[in-house]
Order: sequence, then C-alpha cells, then structure tokens
Amino acid sequence: MSNPFFEKHQALLEHAVNAAASRAYWSPFSESPSPRAYGEGAAEAGKAAFEACRDKPFALNLPGAQGQVGHEISPFGFALGVTYPQLSPVTLVSRASSALASWRKAGPRAWVGVALEVLHRLNARSFEIAHAVQHTTGQGFMMAFQAGGPHAQDRGLEAVAYAWQEMVRIPGQVLWEKPQGKQDPIRMHKEFTLVPRGVALVIGCCTFPTWNSYPGLFASLATGNPVIVKPHPGAILPLAITVQVARQVLAEAGFDPDVVQLAAHAAGDDTARTLALDPAVRLIDFTGSSANGNWLETHARQALVYTEKSGVNQVVIDSVSDFKAVARNLAFSFALYSGQMCTAPQNIYVPRQGIQTDAGPMSFDEVAQGLAQAVQKLVADPARAVEITGAIQNEAVLDRIEAARALGLPVLCDSQSLQHPDFPLATVRTPLLLRADAGHPAIGQEWFGPIVFVVATDSTEHSIALTEASVNEHGALSLGAYTTSDAVREQLRDAAERSGVALSLNLVSSVFVNQTAAFSDFHGTGANPAANAALSDSAYVASRFRVVQTRWHV
Amino acid sequence: MSNPFFEKHQALLEHAVNAAASRAYWSPFSESPSPRAYGEGAAEAGKAAFEACRDKPFALNLPGAQGQVGHEISPFGFALGVTYPQLSPVTLVSRASSALASWRKAGPRAWVGVALEVLHRLNARSFEIAHAVQHTTGQGFMMAFQAGGPHAQDRGLEAVAYAWQEMVRIPGQVLWEKPQGKQDPIRMHKEFTLVPRGVALVIGCCTFPTWNSYPGLFASLATGNPVIVKPHPGAILPLAITVQVARQVLAEAGFDPDVVQLAAHAAGDDTARTLALDPAVRLIDFTGSSANGNWLETHARQALVYTEKSGVNQVVIDSVSDFKAVARNLAFSFALYSGQMCTAPQNIYVPRQGIQTDAGPMSFDEVAQGLAQAVQKLVADPARAVEITGAIQNEAVLDRIEAARALGLPVLCDSQSLQHPDFPLATVRTPLLLRADAGHPAIGQEWFGPIVFVVATDSTEHSIALTEASVNEHGALSLGAYTTSDAVREQLRDAAERSGVALSLNLVSSVFVNQTAAFSDFHGTGANPAANAALSDSAYVASRFRVVQTRWHV
Repeated sequence: MSNPFFEKHQALLEHAVNAAASRAYWSPFSESPSPRAYGEGAAEAGKAAFEACRDKPFALNLPGAQGQVGHEISPFGFALGVTYPQLSPVTLVSRASSALASWRKAGPRAWVGVALEVLHRLNARSFEIAHAVQHTTGQGFMMAFQAGGPHAQDRGLEAVAYAWQEMVRIPGQVLWEKPQGKQDPIRMHKEFTLVPRGVALVIGCCTFPTWNSYPGLFASLATGNPVIVKPHPGAILPLAITVQVARQVLAEAGFDPDVVQLAAHAAGDDTARTLALDPAVRLIDFTGSSANGNWLETHARQALVYTEKSGVNQVVIDSVSDFKAVARNLAFSFALYSGQMCTAPQNIYVPRQGIQTDAGPMSFDEVAQGLAQAVQKLVADPARAVEITGAIQNEAVLDRIEAARALGLPVLCDSQSLQHPDFPLATVRTPLLLRADAGHPAIGQEWFGPIVFVVATDSTEHSIALTEASVNEHGALSLGAYTTSDAVREQLRDAAERSGVALSLNLVSSVFVNQTAAFSDFHGTGANPAANAALSDSAYVASRFRVVQTRWHV
Repeated sequence: MSNPFFEKHQALLEHAVNAAASRAYWSPFSESPSPRAYGEGAAEAGKAAFEACRDKPFALNLPGAQGQVGHEISPFGFALGVTYPQLSPVTLVSRASSALASWRKAGPRAWVGVALEVLHRLNARSFEIAHAVQHTTGQGFMMAFQAGGPHAQDRGLEAVAYAWQEMVRIPGQVLWEKPQGKQDPIRMHKEFTLVPRGVALVIGCCTFPTWNSYPGLFASLATGNPVIVKPHPGAILPLAITVQVARQVLAEAGFDPDVVQLAAHAAGDDTARTLALDPAVRLIDFTGSSANGNWLETHARQALVYTEKSGVNQVVIDSVSDFKAVARNLAFSFALYSGQMCTAPQNIYVPRQGIQTDAGPMSFDEVAQGLAQAVQKLVADPARAVEITGAIQNEAVLDRIEAARALGLPVLCDSQSLQHPDFPLATVRTPLLLRADAGHPAIGQEWFGPIVFVVATDSTEHSIALTEASVNEHGALSLGAYTTSDAVREQLRDAAERSGVALSLNLVSSVFVNQTAAFSDFHGTGANPAANAALSDSAYVASRFRVVQTRWHV
C-alpha cells in the first residue's frame, strides 16, 4: 500500500537511526521555545489552546465510553476542570483487540509512518503540551516545555528508530538454496512476517507524563501493537492530547483509531491492575514506584513488563578543581523541579577528613556549607527560583520533607516555602540539605523530592563502596562524581560498571547529572533494581514483535 | 590486548553476520561426515576417542569438585561407565562469580574470539561428539553427527553472530557537541562499556544435549557472562566434551577456565532448582518440559529466563498434488528419531469427507491408510529403519506408547519393536498411528515420542481453526500444511501468524517439518507457549549484556 506518512518522514527516520548508531548530539525537535523554531504566535496559540481545554470535557471521542472522569489539580493552585471519557478495562482491551486485527496487517512501514506523523504533530503542539505538563506535574514552564515537549518527542522518535532498525533487518523473503553435490540444490522460498505481540499497556506517572511514556508508547505502536495509554489520575491532560493526536493520524491514514486509546480513571481504583492482568495485554511499560513496578513484574506474567522504578541516586566528591562551580552545578540539580525526578541526586558522599581542591584542602564542613550556600544563593530570588523548582506535585512530597526534618539530623540548609509571583497558591519548596553519617539508615531509601543528605564517609574508597552497595541493593538511575585523580576515576568506573549505573564525571557547567540526552545517553541501564530496561536500545524494542515464517519448495 | 582468536575467526564471523541478515543458505560446518570435510581417519579417531572415554572418569579438571557422578546408559543397550567431577551448586556459582571479575573486563573481541575458537575445536571433534550424542540420546549415528555436531555448531555460531552484531553497534566512545547558538558548543566525551549480566546457567535436555544448549551457551559466553552448563543426567558426555574444549581455549587465551563449568549431577536431585534460584545467576537457558520451564519462569525472578518447552505440533492436509510424496515425507517425520523431537508432528488433520489430489478425490480412510502404509514401507527393512528411528531415549517414551495404545482409538499402524543389527539390546520402536476425532481430548496434549494421531475434522476450515486454538493453548514449534489452493494457503498463513507458529507448506522431498536450518529458519517464534524466545534473533541476545556509560566535559 502507498504510505504517505512513511515517505514524508523517511529522511527523519534515517537521521534518527544514524544518530542512535553514532550517539553523537542530535535532536530534530527544537528545545528552544522561540518563534524561530515554532513560528510566530505559537506560544500564544498554545497557551490559548490549553486555556480552552479547561472546565469542560476534553475533545476526545472514545467509542465505548461510559461517563466522564477527571479531577486534575494544578500544583500551581487551581483545578483544571477537564474531564475525559472513561471506558471499562474490559471494553478498552476488547476494542484494542479488535483494532489489532487490521493494525497487525498494516506492516512496519505503516506502523512507523503513523508513529512518525504522530510525533510530528505532537511537536507542533509543544506549547499546549507544555502548559498541560506544567499544570499537572508542577514543572516550571521551561522544563515543562523542553522535557514534556521536544525532549519527550526525541525519546519517542528514538524508540521508533530502534524499532525500525530491528524490523528492517528481517528480510521479507529469501530464496534458500542448499547445494546437494552433483544433484540439483534444494530450493525453498521463505517469507518472514513481522507480527505484533498483542495489546500494549503504557502506565504513565504524574511527574513526567509524556517523557516517561513516549518510549514505550512509540516502541509498541511502531511494532504493530495497539496501545492503551493509562495516565496517572493526576496527570491525564498531556497524554489525552497525545492520544487525541494519535487517533486523528490513525483515522486519516485509514486505520481504526482504537489502535490508541486513553484509559483515564479516578485515583485509587484498580484500573491499572485490572488492565495489567488481562490475558490479551502482552506488553506493559510502567514508570512509578518500586512497589507497583515489582507487583507488575510478579503478577503480569502473560506480558513483557518494562519498568522504571525507585532508586537512590548518589554523588561522590573526592577532589575538585573549582569547588564553587561544583557547588553551583549540584545546587541546580537539587533544586531542579524540587528533586521530583527519578535521576535527581540524593546522597552526596564526602570524606569526613575533607577533600582537596585547587585552592587547597577543604574540610567536610566547608564542603557541606559550600553546597548549602550554593543552594541558598540559587533560590535567593524567588521569581527566578520558582522557574527552577516549579511546584510540589503532591502531598506525599511535602510529607517526606517533614519526615526528613523529623529525622533529627543536622540541617545544612532548610527547605523554604517560596511565594510564586504568578501563582500565589502554588506550593513551592526549596531543597532541604541534611548532614548524615555513612551508617544512617535514612540514606538507604529513596526520598523523592527536594531532600539531600550530605554524607560523611571514612574515605573516598568508602564512598565508592557505599555507592556500589547502594546501587546493587536500592537501584539508581544516575551517579555523579568529582575527582581530579585518574586512579579514583578508574575506581569509580569499575564500581559503576560492576553495579550497572551511568556515571557523570566532574559536571560543572550546563549539563546536570539528572539530565540525559536522547540518541546519546541511555536513560537507565536495565542492570540495577531501578529499571529493568534502558531507554532506548535494541533489547527495549526487539521483543515487541516476533517473526513468523512460511516456507515452501520452489 | 592482542586477540589472536578473534582475528583468526573474524572472516567467519563476518560471514555469519551476513548470513543471518540475508537468511539465505549458509553453513560453515560441513554436515557430511566424509573424509573430504573432516580429514582421513577422522571418523575412526572420533570413534576411538569415544571408546577411550568409557568406564573411567572423564578428563575434566574442575577445581572445587567433591567426588564423581555419572550413570549414563546408552539407549543402544550399554552403560557408558563415565563419571564426571561434581561440584556443589554454591561452589559452582562462587567460582563462576570469581571468574566474572576478569572475564567482564576482557571485552567483546575476547568474548567472541574465545567463543569462535571453541566452536572451531568442537567442529574438529564432531565424530567423537556424534558418538557421545548417539549413546546418550538414542539418535541414529547420522543424525547424532549432524544435529549433535555441525548443526549444533551452526546454531552456536549464529548466536555469536547476533551477539557480536548487537555489541558492535554500541560505539566505544563519542564526542558529543551540543550547539549553543553564538556561544561555544557544550562538549562532552562519552564512553560506553558493555557489561555482562552475571552468571549464566544453561540447562540441557536428554534428546538434543548440544543442539538445544549451544545457542544459550554461546550467546551468554559471547556477551561476557560466565556459564554453568548443567546437562541432563542422562546426557552428560556431549556437554562434558564441550566444557572440556571451552576450558582449554579459555586457559590458552589466559582466562580463568571457570568461565565455563560443568554441573554434572545425579538424576532426581535439586541441582537445577538450587542453581536457578541463586541470586548471582542472572541468565537461564532451558530446554525441557513445560512444567519445569514454567517453574523457572515463575520462580527464578532474578534472572532472564529463556525457555523451550512442550508443544503440540500439527499438520493440516487440505489437498495435494502427489499424495505418495506427501505420505513419504510425513512418514519420515514421524519415524525420525522416533518422534523424540520438539518439532515432530503429532496431530494430522484430514477432513472427514476426504481431500482432493491430482489423481482425484481420496477418502479420509484412504489418506489415513496411505500414511500408515508409508510408515510401514519406511520401516520394513529394520537395518535401514533403525538408522532413522534411532533408539528410545527413556522409559517414559515407552510408557506413552502404551498409554496411547490404551486410549482405545482405532490403530492405523501399530508401533513395532525392531531388532537393531549392531546393538541387539537397543530399544527401537516404529511409529504408532491412531485415528481420532477432532474433539478427542488426547490430541490436546503432547505425546512426546513416535505417536501420531490422524484426526478427522469437519472441513479444512475446521482443521485450521483447530490448529490455531491448539497453538494458542498448548504451543507448537512447527506447523505443516498441504494444499493446492491459494485461498487455503492464505487462511493457513493468517492462522499461523495470528497464533505465532512457523509454517511449512507442501513439503514432499528432502526437507522435513521437524527440521530448521541455522541462519535461515527461526527455531521457535517466542510467540506461543512452546517457547518464550526464538533461535536466534536480536531479542535472544540483546539483553544478555547491558551498557554503562561514563561522560565528562572536554
């Protein structure tokens, strides 16, 4: 069949495949929210589109819906008032299974073509999505734009590129000729058909509804699987827009729009578990707590389950050339989106006897105070600070700040409430820095939010041993380290490679340990308890389809 | 480091990668046991090597061993008398974990170089391995040579080729330059290290100890994982030879031989389960019963588990152009190794009202009788027949023949005992063909062995519906079909693709439904209950290693 969407985006796809192979810098979707990239008026139109969504049913027609659901509250202090059509899990799976029958036959070019056109149209709606992300997650606008828009789209495209690469390596057909000495060879014609696994389920989170959902969504869609997108009840709108776009593209291309459905539901019900245990659901992508992720891995045995869960991220400070730059970089990492990131650093290991710097030795207390001062300086101007911290997504984060305070550890820098100049009802908190000793039990758990422990260790060797043991036991998505010593750097790498965590060394400028770049940095390794897969690699996509061959003599 | 084994076999590796990509015919290891391929005297030397093994401890030095174990009985009627060093599971895992420390650092070229040299040396010992396979599995000599030697080596090489291809696509390092408008770009140096998962366990079966173990063994070894090879207590020798070769190569290359260990044990003990549940074991490859495979998938949660389990293989007969050729082909498939193959056909669906042939219509009874006569003709000469049937591997197969007879179904062709001219004590049985109706419960289970049901169905449409339902419920590794109708062929393909089973159409000459060719045919799809993976594809290897990156500013 003719495939206008595939042909339209083929050059982009080839770029993406090459970028993933080289791992050099590449991003097709501009992270700059400037008119030069997105056109004059795009910012205003996006804001207006977001405002137009409020206080009414969302414009999404899902056949089989029974009633509307939705109670999203912006962390910046207002109810969104948007409702979404709700379908029962059994209806969602039944409609997805029906859609599978024709979608499976469309083949890789159609699957990939549709996926690419969806990404293209999502990019054009990046401003609208940015507002939707901001007012569900609490991210500052710039982060909501970048992480929720182009960076999420990059990750989606990356997954499509891997999927395409895995699919095209299977030849459609081959003539197999086996020599038989002086006799005629045995000749067989063989055809290889790519078949999807079945119905896919994507379970979103409330902090990165698009960024964390797009890899699984696009990996499954591009390999022929119909996808049920189940957003977190606190962050539905960004994925509702995504599903709306996908269904428009599917319909235009002549496919059943039910290839992509939205499973909006009320907080606290059992929609996720019911969907996850349906025998027709064969792929699950999940981002969230270890408890829920481990539950899925244990119980959803009929499905391939890809999880990103909790972890304890760490930074080792051994020796530095410019302490102020180190402290500035780390302070930003602590404050960014109030630490509500799966990659945010939590435990900062510093030898009790201090560290070496270009300006001479620094005591442990000087390092700890230096980090605290950098945080205080970063958040000194509330108007600037709130753009970095954003707002607190939910009560549980506030509760954790209180619980951390109640540990009785020495406070290096207390968490402050800030007044947001534009959103007076927003709940804004600056980072809490506590001093802890290496053996303290509190550092052996995740404190998701703006909570940091500066941990006194016996030595850098001890710091490294602690990081390795913690990654093995609790998992981690990021590891930072500062050292001017080649020997220590090699010890750090060995520990990182043994425990399976990505290492960022000596970040002092505009790259932060909590950020990864699509096409170059793997997000997660799949080699420690924080995630059972990496975004993205062959392993992440290669099992989402299978090959069925037919052979006959010629 | 210099890597003589990799360089020695690099051309072979590139051939293998290209062959897997094209899926055209290719085999580097000759399936002909002729002196032209293997050298003058190779056959005699191999037989002598096998004989020299008998009635003594096998020449394998495994540090940490406590005592010897081994009670293999040739299905051809004699005790092998070979014993093997036995290590406790905890010692095996401990030594494998120690070996991991240096093996992980050797890197892909060393891992792949060692794997290729092992395959090269195994090929040179194909005759010895053939006798070892024959006298543990009961296969006839030619099959033991081909399937146990070169075809198994092909499958091992295929896994290495996929592993290499997945590993080399990860660049070792990259300069990442992100433009910053008029400012200098952000420049980062990134290095990507491939790291193994951990200790790998390969659980062999008693019918294809090498063929079914080599893909997992070589996939894990070539991706840096130390491997514990746990043979079935009834078929240790072929894998003991394999481990012996691997340890020799490892030692010569300067690596810890404990990268590959043998876990010989007595029948009925809990070695497999103890090894499988060890937290350090991160990869498991298993061939055997659904009960044991499902147990592993459920309980060995710390590991990636690749299983090939039971299934019910089927053949649909709709219409044929030359019935005698069809019957000859199927009779051979029934008799080959007495049906003790995971790919052997069991249920043959024929419409109750008969089929069309080039010579006019044939009734159901004529088809059933024609198949029975073809079997009887094939086994009429015992001396020739025993080379096809081989011997019965174990009592359970004989018990199943008796149980099938006891079903009370009409016997189309009874299973006979044959006298083996060379091995008078061998237990040889010809195929049992029974007539069954479509609803009979017996056809809904696997009857591993020379047991075939010719099943009367309402129509070809009914036959196809039965196959699809059976693949979905019971799994299958092969599906055969005979039709002269394009429409029926498409219905068959649809059903095969929906249920996820490879389809062989109209086999009438020297290719049989129970055979797959490495580099071209996938063995298993991973898409139905008979196997959760295919041999081999990207998905089979890509998760056996992970990538840990380190990045820093330049």
